[in-house]
Amino acid sequence: MRIAVDVMGGDHGCAVVIEGAKRALESGSNITALHLVGRESEIHAALAHAGLRDRRVHVVHASDFLTMDDKPARALRKKRDSSIARAIGLIHDGKADAAVSLGNTGGIFAAATIKLGRISGVDRGGIATVIPTPDHRFVLLDSGANIECKPIHLAHYAVMGSIYAREVLGYKSPRVGILSIGTEDTKGNELTLGAFGLCQQIDIDFIGNIEGHDLFKGGVDVVVCDGFVGNIVLKTCESLAGAIFSMLRSELNKNPKRQLGALLVHNAFRGIKRRLDPELHAGAPLLGFNGAVIKTHGSARERAVMNAIRIAAETVEHHVNKIISREIAHANDRLAAHVSIAPTPVIA
Amino acid sequence: MRIAVDVMGGDHGCAVVIEGAKRALESGSNITALHLVGRESEIHAALAHAGLRDRRVHVVHASDFLTMDDKPARALRKKRDSSIARAIGLIHDGKADAAVSLGNTGGIFAAATIKLGRISGVDRGGIATVIPTPDHRFVLLDSGANIECKPIHLAHYAVMGSIYAREVLGYKSPRVGILSIGTEDTKGNELTLGAFGLCQQIDIDFIGNIEGHDLFKGGVDVVVCDGFVGNIVLKTCESLAGAIFSMLRSELNKNPKRQLGALLVHNAFRGIKRRLDPELHAGAPLLGFNGAVIKTHGSARERAVMNAIRIAAETVEHHVNKIISREIAHANDRLAAHVSIAPTPVIA
Repeated sequence: MRIAVDVMGGDHGCAVVIEGAKRALESGSNITALHLVGRESEIHAALAHAGLRDRRVHVVHASDFLTMDDKPARALRKKRDSSIARAIGLIHDGKADAAVSLGNTGGIFAAATIKLGRISGVDRGGIATVIPTPDHRFVLLDSGANIECKPIHLAHYAVMGSIYAREVLGYKSPRVGILSIGTEDTKGNELTLGAFGLCQQIDIDFIGNIEGHDLFKGGVDVVVCDGFVGNIVLKTCESLAGAIFSMLRSELNKNPKRQLGALLVHNAFRGIKRRLDPELHAGAPLLGFNGAVIKTHGSARERAVMNAIRIAAETVEHHVNKIISREIAHANDRLAAHVSIAPTPVIA
Repeated sequence: MRIAVDVMGGDHGCAVVIEGAKRALESGSNITALHLVGRESEIHAALAHAGLRDRRVHVVHASDFLTMDDKPARALRKKRDSSIARAIGLIHDGKADAAVSLGNTGGIFAAATIKLGRISGVDRGGIATVIPTPDHRFVLLDSGANIECKPIHLAHYAVMGSIYAREVLGYKSPRVGILSIGTEDTKGNELTLGAFGLCQQIDIDFIGNIEGHDLFKGGVDVVVCDGFVGNIVLKTCESLAGAIFSMLRSELNKNPKRQLGALLVHNAFRGIKRRLDPELHAGAPLLGFNGAVIKTHGSARERAVMNAIRIAAETVEHHVNKIISREIAHANDRLAAHVSIAPTPVIA
């Protein structure tokens, strides 16, 4: 397993990313090569600082990188030697099996589109984020790449999310729902109503519409929506969970009686925070491209980087892209057959 | 202050609604008449059970009501004597100043549209929900009525939400944000980008785009979005908050040490639950109609009904609709002036 890590563009600098890469090398025996892509001098300094001397590590110089403010397509054209383009280019050149980046989401998506291209039959790629719930976790896609979606995109997300949930998360027959404003077939907007019809035709465990109330009840494994809605849902959840825990902290500090109580229940909070920990689920795979690309938060720290690298390895090991290629072709056949057997509209 | 309450269509039956109405009468001295609208026999039985004998109470019979599964427009046509149409009709007939209902949201919205009509100049009504945050609360609209929005609808929501936040919640100069996927001007979908341009022209404290991460940080007072996104955000928040508290409960019950700790910190949890209590913010006003209509959860219990009635009274007392009429006219003038001074496109 050969993994390219774009070490630039994270909020905490490349040293944190390289420390995360070091932990991944220590824990993951199946990594045979780790390409660290970015400014050579910074990488060498960080390697020395981390005390990382490993024959599997290769430094790949890229003179530039995309900032969070860069407009993806334009920046990729202007910054010809960007770390993300170079990292993903290593997959294209057959030197890496997967790439991981903390950078600009749009930039990663655009670089994957340009350098790798989409899997044949896939209309649009998407980002799949795994969201933890009390007793479960579900895949949300698209979580922020494809802002203006068509029904066929959601149908393809349903297929790809289902494959990811089955092959990587280990769900036997993942239940797929379309995120909408009511569970009835007739509830939704033009996009979700169109996608509903398509999802009924394809070979997935389609449970219909789900609404916001259903997300954390454990009844759905793959939640499909456009990238605008997905991004808002993802960030809203992170924001609300953070707000509740910060309220808890301040309330528990209000008087000595509560402080004593807080000591006694400390492990309970730790248990919950561990279960909901976004760092643990930090790697979001871009699905639908000819190569495994994993995006993680700009604010990711060592543990998140390590987990993103682990997720990259799992995505490759489980042949996710090969299966996507096969099942998307099958789904497209089903959809085409459905269209061709549909009655031709009569024009009066 | 004369308020009509549609007592039908709630999950817990009309007795719970009438108990809530009783509490509202006991606490709100400014109510001069309370019309209870629904099946007469059920209302009389519930009044007797609640021991409610008050000269301000009037029973208004309606033989039918809309269920949660009813398709709003069709059901209103078929069920000619529905409780929601009759309750809102009392405003139209000058017999009530406001109406409160727990029923089918689409039905309430459709009845308001048909019976009251929109305030002149308002392109589309919306539902405004107040969402509590750790140290603050914000107005989210539209929270589920207008699924397919145009930019002008969001601009009108910005004006109306701003008025509600100022006049009823008491915010001096409410900060209005458009819910999007990044704070930069250029981030968003076609709808939000269009609305962004309009909101810059009108007389509100427009802070630009906000994203999911910003919702619970206290930096925004009015959050504007289409009803599809608003409904999903609202329900996702309720679902996640519920999930976190249920995890807490189960973790705190795991062993005697934690149970003891939980006793000591009990008040801390109560404090948080009180602050985030949806019952307290249960009344969501429909803004943009010629009359004050307040919708609350189908699952609302006594306290939520009492609060919804209080919110109805506040909306009327603060002359929200009169101010909306004035400020929407002003905003429309600004937008028209902006369009007319814009350079005319040259067709080559």
